[in-house]
Amino acid sequence: MDNSGITAEEVLRVMLERDRFTQWMGLVIDDHGKGFCKLHFVVKEEMLNGFHNIHGGILFSASDSAFAFACNSHGLITVALDVTISFARPVKSGELLTVEAKEIFLGNKIGIYDIRTNNDRNEPVCFFKGTAYRTSKPVR
Amino acid sequence: MDNSGITAEEVLRVMLERDRFTQWMGLVIDDHGKGFCKLHFVVKEEMLNGFHNIHGGILFSASDSAFAFACNSHGLITVALDVTISFARPVKSGELLTVEAKEIFLGNKIGIYDIRTNNDRNEPVCFFKGTAYRTSKPVR
Amino acid sequence: MDNSGITAEEVLRVMLERDRFTQWMGLVIDDHGKGFCKLHFVVKEEMLNGFHNIHGGILFSASDSAFAFACNSHGLITVALDVTISFARPVKSGELLTVEAKEIFLGNKIGIYDIRTNNDRNEPVCFFKGTAYRTSKPVR
Amino acid sequence: MDNSGITAEEVLRVMLERDRFTQWMGLVIDDHGKGFCKLHFVVKEEMLNGFHNIHGGILFSASDSAFAFACNSHGLITVALDVTISFARPVKSGELLTVEAKEIFLGNKIGIYDIRTNNDRNEPVCFFKGTAYRTSKPVR
Repeated sequence: MDNSGITAEEVLRVMLERDRFTQWMGLVIDDHGKGFCKLHFVVKEEMLNGFHNIHGGILFSASDSAFAFACNSHGLITVALDVTISFARPVKSGELLTVEAKEIFLGNKIGIYDIRTNNDRNEPVCFFKGTAYRTSKPVR
Repeated sequence: MDNSGITAEEVLRVMLERDRFTQWMGLVIDDHGKGFCKLHFVVKEEMLNGFHNIHGGILFSASDSAFAFACNSHGLITVALDVTISFARPVKSGELLTVEAKEIFLGNKIGIYDIRTNNDRNEPVCFFKGTAYRTSKPVR
Repeated sequence: MDNSGITAEEVLRVMLERDRFTQWMGLVIDDHGKGFCKLHFVVKEEMLNGFHNIHGGILFSASDSAFAFACNSHGLITVALDVTISFARPVKSGELLTVEAKEIFLGNKIGIYDIRTNNDRNEPVCFFKGTAYRTSKPVR
Repeated sequence: MDNSGITAEEVLRVMLERDRFTQWMGLVIDDHGKGFCKLHFVVKEEMLNGFHNIHGGILFSASDSAFAFACNSHGLITVALDVTISFARPVKSGELLTVEAKEIFLGNKIGIYDIRTNNDRNEPVCFFKGTAYRTSKPVR
């Protein structure tokens, strides 16, 4: 399924250098390969909502980036169709969050991914499940 | 259900003035009241992903803000539990997006909201459904 | 998108005559056409869970049948990828439920559907959102 | 969190003896305890849809039963709020399916569960994520 002639490493490099929002969030990739991605970031003031907690959209976005890096790793352009996120606990400014994306299914056209975010006490913050559609176009 | 002694208008003002990420996105509220919210924004370069489209996290975040403004409008602090988003079409930099949140259920403890985002040709961009838990604490 | 040479009416007839579980549930189609379906059923004892309410799986199943009838109506075999359901209130044996499926997006490969179930006081019971993948194979 | 004065074993017995739809599906519990449940069943003709595959509603229902047995195991009546299911592959009549529910978060009011269904070649069939609201009423 991976005969796109581009390695996971190259895909990640291409995606990262153009991904302005991932840059804005300050996501740091810790590990990456075929079907997985692990990253972390620190919550900053611009990421807060009206109740002094992290905006749910930031939690989603960090998971969504990890999802994208994991599902595109096979070299074909792969787009999110449906995502669900369940929120477990609030997060404050300054906390360090770790996000881990795992491929739980890879079919011809569809991949399914499980992404979990933990805080620095290793407590779960949110649970993201995403389904992606695999086009036949190679990345770059 | 709304005897919190605070109007929808006051809730919105309190939330908006502290919501750093909503400010960063440049969301503009067009309409707001008990159980609904309508807003718009323009997609900027910092919101793009590695494929020159809007990052899915931004689409989620704008819907999530509309969701939060709608579900907190009754005056009680209300937090997102579960959200699902389905993506229909890509969006480029410079496009104007309209986001509309409607309350489709309001119970004692739970509210359910339907949030839709359209582009400026009035084509659907994404569909967001969110469930929120209503605490007994008033906003502010 | 509908040049499959089979009408919505024929698709429904073909699907219904073979759909053993829809038959078991006693679903009655009230209206059907390209991209929509309306049906009703009465909750029976075999549909209850351990708390004397309707089993969540039955609510899902009735919506899922309406979803399938709506998304296959264009004549191409169309399969569910992702579904989310939000439960609003319990239902007892003997209640009459109405289920309405609407197409909210139809693309080349993907359709998105909104399905709502109401009780006979017209109160919402559950909200179902489904994404389906359109194969290139005609029904039958 | 479990001081309801009823064991997981008793909860399961009470729920099972009244759960007519779980009985109809022929679900067999293989393992059960605080926060988890494992069960299996064999797909029968009455469970098929119009394309000779298992009806998506049955896959959901079996997962939903495992979810209910897992989340009520702590002794408080616990109800599903939101569920998402992603379908990975079709299933035919006669196949044996295994369903495993795990608690991935337990808070005061909310529990989050991950339920996976595999076929007898240990291939994934569907992925179910559910959020439940914990009432303060004990089971029975």
